[in-house]
Amino acid sequence: MLAVVFDDKVEVREVPDPIPGEGEALVKVLLAGICGTDIGLLAGYKSFRGIPGHEMVGVVEEAPDPSWVGARVVSEINIACGSCPLCRQGLARHCETRQVLGLVDKAGVFSERVAVPLENLHRVPDSIPDEEAVWTEPLAAALAVGEVGIRRGDQALVVGDGRLGALIVLGLQYCGAEVELVGKSSEKLQRLEALGVRVRREPPSPVYPFVIEATGSPLGLEAARAWTRPRGTIVLKSTCHEPSKVDVSRVVVDELRLVGSRCGDFPPALEALASGALPVRHLISRTYPLAKAEGALAEAVQPGVFKVLLDMRGLNR
Amino acid sequence: MLAVVFDDKVEVREVPDPIPGEGEALVKVLLAGICGTDIGLLAGYKSFRGIPGHEMVGVVEEAPDPSWVGARVVSEINIACGSCPLCRQGLARHCETRQVLGLVDKAGVFSERVAVPLENLHRVPDSIPDEEAVWTEPLAAALAVGEVGIRRGDQALVVGDGRLGALIVLGLQYCGAEVELVGKSSEKLQRLEALGVRVRREPPSPVYPFVIEATGSPLGLEAARAWTRPRGTIVLKSTCHEPSKVDVSRVVVDELRLVGSRCGDFPPALEALASGALPVRHLISRTYPLAKAEGALAEAVQPGVFKVLLDMRGLNR
Repeated sequence: MLAVVFDDKVEVREVPDPIPGEGEALVKVLLAGICGTDIGLLAGYKSFRGIPGHEMVGVVEEAPDPSWVGARVVSEINIACGSCPLCRQGLARHCETRQVLGLVDKAGVFSERVAVPLENLHRVPDSIPDEEAVWTEPLAAALAVGEVGIRRGDQALVVGDGRLGALIVLGLQYCGAEVELVGKSSEKLQRLEALGVRVRREPPSPVYPFVIEATGSPLGLEAARAWTRPRGTIVLKSTCHEPSKVDVSRVVVDELRLVGSRCGDFPPALEALASGALPVRHLISRTYPLAKAEGALAEAVQPGVFKVLLDMRGLNR
Repeated sequence: MLAVVFDDKVEVREVPDPIPGEGEALVKVLLAGICGTDIGLLAGYKSFRGIPGHEMVGVVEEAPDPSWVGARVVSEINIACGSCPLCRQGLARHCETRQVLGLVDKAGVFSERVAVPLENLHRVPDSIPDEEAVWTEPLAAALAVGEVGIRRGDQALVVGDGRLGALIVLGLQYCGAEVELVGKSSEKLQRLEALGVRVRREPPSPVYPFVIEATGSPLGLEAARAWTRPRGTIVLKSTCHEPSKVDVSRVVVDELRLVGSRCGDFPPALEALASGALPVRHLISRTYPLAKAEGALAEAVQPGVFKVLLDMRGLNR
């Protein structure tokens, strides 16, 4: 099969089909999304080698339970051992020896086929087209910011106009929050405004009870802190590669709460997509066939670009 | 009256008695405690000038409501305006123009008498001796760490063996948590061990669901972070004067929660003291008469010293 292979450099080439392990299904990938984490990984910020990619929609070709064959699916990305102390405490997402699809010790989805545990799969309702279903994993992560207690009508500020910030602001808008986004790229801010997002070039005084840090920069945390109301909550979404500085005295005096947020649950994301109320398709900057993945990865880092997809649907074999 | 006056340098001298404003009581101070914040203030880390001190037990001499006269009391330290947006949102403790006893725009308790709003006062049960009642304010702040959801039997680690760390570990022990303390001063660790505290020179692998950062050092946050279990909570108590660096990527990936904690409610602290189960008296390193306050402040910064008190009870006038 054709796959993107990362081994010091990125290459699109023929590799053997994956062989599903015990409890695994074989999934034919339809569409895959390029995420900021993939770009960081290919830039050398993780030790991963192999097939990257973790955002996808596909069709089950083989499964231990034959009722899944032919189902259109999305896949959760963490594969836990099930027996370490953290797994036994119900923290499987933090399993010490976990594999993560396309990120840690497990071949990912930038390929024609991928083998994943059947229990990681969720069926996609027919009403959700491929171009929206492929957003399930990042949308679940974006909607997870609501877990800190953001309710309908609550004021919130998203800091950062990248892929993640854009998806978070759309997710919070969908959930009924009074959300604004502050960013730097005029092009991106204009595109978001066209989707009904209230954008700000400069936010006002520190009045927000909820601030979501999604800049990807070590400077983002202190900026978010300065815009948070006393007793407010900062949700941390950036995984930048340098430590961030924060004025802990202000965090203490203002009694702020900082909450790290990584992954989210798939069912609410699928439900949100099925509602048709999330304009995620408008965040797709361009779709490339898998064979042109190098071009796709190069485009994904360009300024003004939100989401770039890889399309495997043209590969008929 | 005699008072400690800070005006670029610290001096003990005669000053006019305070004149209570509207709604204020005049309180004769019995004992006052020296806190790390006082030391920072006198070292020039705040712009405060005047009479410092905010931990005290006293007796009401004059009050708008005469039923308070003669009552032994402790005083909350924040004085809010009651009308700004934060006050109207129920965040009076964070009032933008708040005064803070002995810390912000309000004469403090290192003096024979102090004027404070009657509504800031709490009556002290007779069963609590002065030497324990004077701990109410710092104990309230220490017990406030429990607000993050630390329950009986929960594992917790206190990082830092200073005044605050010691009080927090005793408070959590009182609340039934399985708490340990990690610190550097052999002398302090030995004294805490004698009070039944489980101390560690080096904590084990990162297994704690709750970690309390009370080092007063900008390095404390990252140390606390490294000892926190995935999905765990770090309570920030230090108000150090330099920004702290933290590996935000780990906070995100481990989905940690960081909560700044400053003040606490007085009633639970008075209840804890009334129980007699908190060995706070054993944390008193020495008591000085008010006239010797300069010596007391010098001793409070010495290694191995927990709490130093100022005693005004010998002043008969």
